[in-house]
Amino acid sequence: MPLGSDYAGQQCAIARSLEIVGERWTLLIVRDLFYGVRRFNDFRKHIGVPSATLTQRLNDLVEAGVVARVSGSGARDEYELTARGAALWPVISALGSWGRESLEPDERHQYTHVRCGSALIDGRCETCQLAPPAADIVMEPSRRENPSTDPVTRALRRPHRLLEPLAV
Amino acid sequence: MPLGSDYAGQQCAIARSLEIVGERWTLLIVRDLFYGVRRFNDFRKHIGVPSATLTQRLNDLVEAGVVARVSGSGARDEYELTARGAALWPVISALGSWGRESLEPDERHQYTHVRCGSALIDGRCETCQLAPPAADIVMEPSRRENPSTDPVTRALRRPHRLLEPLAV
Repeated sequence: MPLGSDYAGQQCAIARSLEIVGERWTLLIVRDLFYGVRRFNDFRKHIGVPSATLTQRLNDLVEAGVVARVSGSGARDEYELTARGAALWPVISALGSWGRESLEPDERHQYTHVRCGSALIDGRCETCQLAPPAADIVMEPSRRENPSTDPVTRALRRPHRLLEPLAV
Repeated sequence: MPLGSDYAGQQCAIARSLEIVGERWTLLIVRDLFYGVRRFNDFRKHIGVPSATLTQRLNDLVEAGVVARVSGSGARDEYELTARGAALWPVISALGSWGRESLEPDERHQYTHVRCGSALIDGRCETCQLAPPAADIVMEPSRRENPSTDPVTRALRRPHRLLEPLAV
């Protein structure tokens, strides 16, 4: 828990959460895990995070039980969210909603509820009135194309079900 | 926007949000602003953030239009959330829900919807089925008392309506 000592006087649930996910870059890594990114180099190229920092953040997330290190198809380990990590979806979703409403981002992914095909607004299905878990959500590519050419950005130009491994 | 240059390749709404609130300590400061903390020294003592860092974070938040610097009752300026900043409540609420469910924090604030008096579960009113804005929420003190003796922690031992200036 990287910020444990610094946030030691902060016992509330929000501070405890930020001990785990409040470090620089960590929530971008978690976002990519929801997108199905699994390999070290794919995170590195997609997010632009320095290798040493990425190693540290992944180790911290594994230690906190948010991420699991699993055998990959190649020689190297891969990473995926645990159930505890997948429960972070409302945090990522709320950050995206705020960014869309407040900051005029270039990219505007859209999210659809798998079970009924309806769009999500602020994380909730317009039809079912539920906030589905990440595993029941498809991310539709942004209409305004991201000019980046890294493999993850290219793979995300197709609709992709959250948490399913991304074919990079 | 503090992380602008480092996150430059990240144009999605989540990354844009993290450019504003993804720095270390920033979301704890935003949390305290929802609690009604307004004075520099109150943030400093309650959060334990170093003065130089707090100055930088508050300046960044003012520049990003999330926080306004306003005249206080004393000689010094005070700080409050703008409408853009108050729209961050779902992010803070989701971090709190995740911490409560996943991390067994010592403190468990409870939130109540002002209009009907019902408890909020994951940010939603049990009775109205709405996710009220922060201004319509009262924070009830944790049953397990926080042993800290700083003025903000003491003031938060009474129920407090979010966004109203805290009597410290």
